[in-house]
Amino acid sequence: MTAAPQTLRWENDELYLLDQRRLPHEVAYLHVDDLSAAWEAIHTLTVRGAPAIGIAAAYALARSMREVNADDFVATLSANAEYLKSARPTAVNLAWAVDKLVAIGDETHRYDTLAAAACDIHAEDTAICTAIGEHGAALIREGSNVLTHCNAGSLAVSRHGTATAPMYHQHAAGVPFHVFVDETRPLYQGARLTAWELSEAGIDVTLICDNMAATVMSQGRVDLVIVGTDRVTANGDVINKIGTLNLAVLCNHFDVPFYVACPSSTFDAGTADGGSVPIEERAPEEVRQTHAADVPVYNPAFDVTPAALVTGIITEHGLCEAAAIGGILQPG
Amino acid sequence: MTAAPQTLRWENDELYLLDQRRLPHEVAYLHVDDLSAAWEAIHTLTVRGAPAIGIAAAYALARSMREVNADDFVATLSANAEYLKSARPTAVNLAWAVDKLVAIGDETHRYDTLAAAACDIHAEDTAICTAIGEHGAALIREGSNVLTHCNAGSLAVSRHGTATAPMYHQHAAGVPFHVFVDETRPLYQGARLTAWELSEAGIDVTLICDNMAATVMSQGRVDLVIVGTDRVTANGDVINKIGTLNLAVLCNHFDVPFYVACPSSTFDAGTADGGSVPIEERAPEEVRQTHAADVPVYNPAFDVTPAALVTGIITEHGLCEAAAIGGILQPG
Repeated sequence: MTAAPQTLRWENDELYLLDQRRLPHEVAYLHVDDLSAAWEAIHTLTVRGAPAIGIAAAYALARSMREVNADDFVATLSANAEYLKSARPTAVNLAWAVDKLVAIGDETHRYDTLAAAACDIHAEDTAICTAIGEHGAALIREGSNVLTHCNAGSLAVSRHGTATAPMYHQHAAGVPFHVFVDETRPLYQGARLTAWELSEAGIDVTLICDNMAATVMSQGRVDLVIVGTDRVTANGDVINKIGTLNLAVLCNHFDVPFYVACPSSTFDAGTADGGSVPIEERAPEEVRQTHAADVPVYNPAFDVTPAALVTGIITEHGLCEAAAIGGILQPG
Repeated sequence: MTAAPQTLRWENDELYLLDQRRLPHEVAYLHVDDLSAAWEAIHTLTVRGAPAIGIAAAYALARSMREVNADDFVATLSANAEYLKSARPTAVNLAWAVDKLVAIGDETHRYDTLAAAACDIHAEDTAICTAIGEHGAALIREGSNVLTHCNAGSLAVSRHGTATAPMYHQHAAGVPFHVFVDETRPLYQGARLTAWELSEAGIDVTLICDNMAATVMSQGRVDLVIVGTDRVTANGDVINKIGTLNLAVLCNHFDVPFYVACPSSTFDAGTADGGSVPIEERAPEEVRQTHAADVPVYNPAFDVTPAALVTGIITEHGLCEAAAIGGILQPG
């Protein structure tokens, strides 16, 4: 029984990133030995997934300060931090992790405190994923058929992932089960990443096209769906990769439980509901590929699943009903 | 206002096929001037779609008999027919059209009766599509948003197609409307063929990934869905391209009417329900593409939509409720 692949490694004060652009054809770790290499890796999606980007940036920023002397420390740290944040300006976790290290470095002027802070961020993320795995484990029984969408796996987060955490937990416990992986058009994160990482760990997977989920559910071959999420609004609506709403509607029709796994930091108490969240539209070429030269395309990156279609949300604190989120969170 | 593209043309006793393998990048007609060229065209999907294959085969068989003298007529016709049928052994319409011509040629021993019979088959198919268009036209109003899946268009059938027939009818009548086209994984018939043929005809289309249909429906942007079908069983279940059931469930949830368009010859009174129909599973490579080297794949080519999820079926005879089919057909 093998474990989930490692998105990044910190060994002897050096950072190594799994090059996700080469997956699943090649498993190669990139030695990120200076700040511009880190910038490039984040910018070009060598590392992707909000938590993984934050962790990688923290290690990279710490690493960049290893040989900086005390006199230049604050100025260099500030410059390096701004440079790193410019690699993906809209990545909230990147800015959050970098700012956390800057605050520490401004006080201590010491590399070792930065490296320790990066390790803490990494460890905290891993602990959250482990806890999600524990709380969601009971949902996956011997012989269960799980269906998942996109990649909310160890590649996007840290060890264990979020949606995949209960799967890795049960796999480690020796419970046999099977996972249907949606390919996840248009960017194929399911086919490229999730199918690969679960297979690598020795979990029994079957890849399907997104439009086949209805068929396998109609055949009684899906016991539960688990997906990740980018944001849960105050009323319990779930913003996640395009195709998630489709699955939630199917689950409702075929009476299959629909679970969302995420750290509690994903809850956004300041946004009333999913209707208030602007949905990123991406380039038409992602959908057209080489098939339809100039036909108009609608390519929303995310969709909104109403709380009423969500059976439960699994966080590091436990399992709660999406509809109950409204009572827990106070819209700001 | 332009018309729907022509799948095939019969001009001066010569057959020309639109090469669908080159679409949408190149619009090229192949002059099919001997029987082996016809065999190759059918075998390699230069022409595809059950009715279109039957029509092409009829013309090609007639053409192959043009210079055959009366003494050799019956033997040559029989040999040519068998050869042509071997191009796609499971295509029912191919065998049906070829056998029809053989019966005529065996009696008349004359090329011109074969050419006339091929023209009749073509004209009958066109008349059926036209009638489907007339009966379905009222469903599409000014400003309507239609959603369709796969290619049940003029490329698969003959002029006007089946699912697209009401669209071509209303477009010709000057009614402005808009069509969302599902790309239709794994073979992208929507992206490659339907988006192209509707655009060519001047109809306003937007291409989406299959998993985005839920989103556009949730936004109130879909007024009706029209799809084709490969077979309607005695109880009104609809067998069609994988992804159709998914749409029907979404329509049910979002209260969007779901229509199926087909010739009445598609009704299969001899099969009680969709559960009795064996579903073809295709090669895993279609799903994997270059993404997932050797992961297990489930790749059903079709799915079964229960009659209860079908608002109505549009045939050349009119619009009827799927649930009423059971009362019309007698399971054999």
